[in-house]
Amino acid sequence: MHARRQTLAGLTLLLAASTAQAGDDITTLITEGTDTVPACATCHGETGLGSADVGAPMIAGMDAGFLAGALRGFAAGTRRGDTMSGIAPELSEAQIDALAAHFAALAPEKQDWPLPETDTPADVARGEAIFRNGAWDAGVPACASCHGQNGEGQSATFPRIAGQEPAYVMTRLEQLAEDPQPSDDSTVALMASVARKLTPEDRAALAAFVATLDPTAGHVTGYTAANLAWDVPKMKASPLADAIDWTAAQTAYEKQQKRINNPKVYTHTPPTPDQIPEGPEGEMIRFGRDIFINTQQLRGTYVGNDLACTNCHLNAGAKADAAPIWATTVDFPQYRSKNLHVNTLYERLAGCFTYSMNGTPPAPNSKVMVALESYMKWLATGIPSDAIVEPRGYIYLPVPEEKPDYARGEAVYEARCAACHGSDGAGVKNGDHVAFPPLWGENSFNWGAGMHDLEKAAGFIKHNMPLGNADLSDADAWDVALYIDSHQRPQDPRWLGSVEDTRRFFQRGSNTYGLTTPAGKMGDIGAPLPKPAGLSAAESVSPKLTDVARAQIAAEGAAN
Amino acid sequence: MHARRQTLAGLTLLLAASTAQAGDDITTLITEGTDTVPACATCHGETGLGSADVGAPMIAGMDAGFLAGALRGFAAGTRRGDTMSGIAPELSEAQIDALAAHFAALAPEKQDWPLPETDTPADVARGEAIFRNGAWDAGVPACASCHGQNGEGQSATFPRIAGQEPAYVMTRLEQLAEDPQPSDDSTVALMASVARKLTPEDRAALAAFVATLDPTAGHVTGYTAANLAWDVPKMKASPLADAIDWTAAQTAYEKQQKRINNPKVYTHTPPTPDQIPEGPEGEMIRFGRDIFINTQQLRGTYVGNDLACTNCHLNAGAKADAAPIWATTVDFPQYRSKNLHVNTLYERLAGCFTYSMNGTPPAPNSKVMVALESYMKWLATGIPSDAIVEPRGYIYLPVPEEKPDYARGEAVYEARCAACHGSDGAGVKNGDHVAFPPLWGENSFNWGAGMHDLEKAAGFIKHNMPLGNADLSDADAWDVALYIDSHQRPQDPRWLGSVEDTRRFFQRGSNTYGLTTPAGKMGDIGAPLPKPAGLSAAESVSPKLTDVARAQIAAEGAAN
Repeated sequence: MHARRQTLAGLTLLLAASTAQAGDDITTLITEGTDTVPACATCHGETGLGSADVGAPMIAGMDAGFLAGALRGFAAGTRRGDTMSGIAPELSEAQIDALAAHFAALAPEKQDWPLPETDTPADVARGEAIFRNGAWDAGVPACASCHGQNGEGQSATFPRIAGQEPAYVMTRLEQLAEDPQPSDDSTVALMASVARKLTPEDRAALAAFVATLDPTAGHVTGYTAANLAWDVPKMKASPLADAIDWTAAQTAYEKQQKRINNPKVYTHTPPTPDQIPEGPEGEMIRFGRDIFINTQQLRGTYVGNDLACTNCHLNAGAKADAAPIWATTVDFPQYRSKNLHVNTLYERLAGCFTYSMNGTPPAPNSKVMVALESYMKWLATGIPSDAIVEPRGYIYLPVPEEKPDYARGEAVYEARCAACHGSDGAGVKNGDHVAFPPLWGENSFNWGAGMHDLEKAAGFIKHNMPLGNADLSDADAWDVALYIDSHQRPQDPRWLGSVEDTRRFFQRGSNTYGLTTPAGKMGDIGAPLPKPAGLSAAESVSPKLTDVARAQIAAEGAAN
Repeated sequence: MHARRQTLAGLTLLLAASTAQAGDDITTLITEGTDTVPACATCHGETGLGSADVGAPMIAGMDAGFLAGALRGFAAGTRRGDTMSGIAPELSEAQIDALAAHFAALAPEKQDWPLPETDTPADVARGEAIFRNGAWDAGVPACASCHGQNGEGQSATFPRIAGQEPAYVMTRLEQLAEDPQPSDDSTVALMASVARKLTPEDRAALAAFVATLDPTAGHVTGYTAANLAWDVPKMKASPLADAIDWTAAQTAYEKQQKRINNPKVYTHTPPTPDQIPEGPEGEMIRFGRDIFINTQQLRGTYVGNDLACTNCHLNAGAKADAAPIWATTVDFPQYRSKNLHVNTLYERLAGCFTYSMNGTPPAPNSKVMVALESYMKWLATGIPSDAIVEPRGYIYLPVPEEKPDYARGEAVYEARCAACHGSDGAGVKNGDHVAFPPLWGENSFNWGAGMHDLEKAAGFIKHNMPLGNADLSDADAWDVALYIDSHQRPQDPRWLGSVEDTRRFFQRGSNTYGLTTPAGKMGDIGAPLPKPAGLSAAESVSPKLTDVARAQIAAEGAAN
């Protein structure tokens, strides 16, 4: 094969010189034939499109080097063919090259080939699977890996098989499989090795499938700057409402119940801190856990408020009913309705920094991020990667018949929550040190954080608060959640210029954003404050939904 | 509690007015006592350090608000204390505040407390675990979450417990646990709820542990720009050698054999492409698989050579003995000796683009990266996150007694490899389209890619090449691997200015970098070429080992 490729360049010169003379000669050969050579057109057709009646392949538009090589193989007896083995020895070297060049220049056509009769109908889907993915259990690589993803053929070595006549394909595979003499040509020997691993059913399936491929298609293309960029998601703005819409909270509860009651649910027991291994990975795990607890040491770099990870993810993310963080490792990359695209774990973690911490995420390969991801992975130790892990997030409560109430919430808050979180919701500090987290106000999570959705807050409170003595009734938990959510907090970073627009596009949950509570109109506090100087700024390149929403708002305005 | 906190501000004013008068008064109280009030010093000591003999707590330096609150509790009967319940009712409001202020101003000391006698010795480790992590199974949160990570106490509500006298701590926990009357004070009720969940052994363990904490320590600190940045790794340069060092290859083989023969090994069967789910996650998985195969469509953006992912990761990463990519999902974050730190999956994938594709990695949240990670995660479906997944990477061969040979390798290459990869190693193209991948030269993987380590190349070739007919002997595979590795390829991007230095710091495997083969001195081709215009550039912030190595080279030079 190698020798043939080197010879081809020389042959091209030879061909150019003899074209005029060979022209008449091969026209005769193709249409009329000679005494010893039947007309090519008899089986292959004048335009080289082949014939199902006699199982003649479509040779139009195949690589000239491949066609010439095949003819020489028939002539020398190294390639077997019931008909061609008898014809090829009669052709001169010049005729072979001229014929190859002639048919290579013709256009192939997609044809509606009849399938050869087989005992059971050919399994086209099986054929496609072998073509595209191989049958690796039997040692068969994908046909596409050598013949091209569209079966278009690759150089003189691997012929085009797209749209080929199926009876021919079956016969050829059978010949290769049954030939007792391995070919001297290493690529023919390779194909024979593959053919031997195919069953007769596989061969029929492949013949049926490759017949369906378009022989005029070239290599696979299609990646463009546009489709390598994120698709612009379709944003669905919710209707404006002047009261809390409880649908989202109730739906969240029902969906979670269904998942929790799934018989395949996997209940995880995380390892304990004393099981953290030694070595560099253990160091990262330990550092990640430390960050979960001592998050305030990142205040001013990545954290813009008074919270710590462990404030919401109790027991440093290892408490099952307080948003345990172990499921993330097996869940991500995951589609999130919050931002309408598939997120990596990095982007999810970046969201915590942006919203819950009202800060700016560390860069992807930074030590802080690697530590957090290491810790989360370690907590997930043993979870099968396709497990339905429950519980996860917060355990929701059904939305009560009698709706939550601000005044009742205030009373419960003062009696049970204010000692640690302050009557003003600002938490408690020991000097500069945050002793207990603020629940609203400028140093708490912002309007983009998940905790301001009422079902999350109520579920968290019910199962966890007061810490160490979680004994509130469902009704108390709902009331307190509403009370807390009815106070101002930092602006949603996805701010669209008005509370109404921000609510329509980004606040479709059960929450108070944009509604008026005894503490004012929630979210009506202007644009987000600039990040404090010193906060790092890692850029995210995922779809910028604010841009999408702004465009949609502009279009709606223009339509009116 | 809330009411008390509000009153405290008023009391401070009152205190300021009466300090002079109270000064003499409390000195007497502390040192001598009165008819009805025994001297505080009798039990707590003049400096408030407490006493193990009578189980009196160290009150020096505790929060004044807490101390006053405790005294008022004793006075009102809402707080129980065998001794103090009798004394506190005799104190005036002014005396209470003055005493609290006095002891709060004294310095606590770390003391070597004797442990109270218990049936079994107190389990200090258990105490530390409850203090730091809680006993969540029993509903006990970590003591540290309210009392501070160093037990330093938080505001007037949660007292300092660091270094406290252990007999007192045990008694107090017992009182709280056994008090039949829940306190009106919500934080005392909370602590009582926690104390009830502790066993007597837990209480002894806690008392023993908190006694060991330093009462002078404040809040946890220690994060600095320096320790949030990556630690500078210790680089170990290997000695220069003028022949291939086979140690690395043999070690790799032996380590892998050990892993493969581990009885706990998990053998993975990945899902097949027809099982890719619908929906946005399925789209990403499909796109990721497409990128694995049609990688050349990224040529000029992220890919700088003629390779595709599937060239090395056969069957689009789903072939067990050709570097299957499924283990990555459960392995990362992982320590890599290649760059001496813990890597996320993103950084690992970025490495493929930098070295194997001689290009530039896409940004972390880019659609290309999300698609690749999604596909890899899907291929891992079902793997437990702590599984020892084998096989992985390439399946190594033992280093043969008779060392691999260039000339023998050349002969095998010409006979079995050149048809697809070209005699010049440049692969085969169909016009602009890469039909078969180059194995060396400017369009192949660079000197930083894993495949130029001989055990990887030999293992890959032995089990996979020629594709569809992998029948080479071990010796042939080694010879061909050596032959391929003995040709030039693009410079190692970690280039340190000379082949010798680059080899010493980064080329410690079994390979030819820096050695002279029939094709020249390997790697001696100058600095890496600039990336073609148009190649994107995502920055990695992980430790820059080239900087570390350059510093080390400079220091060595200075030492000479």
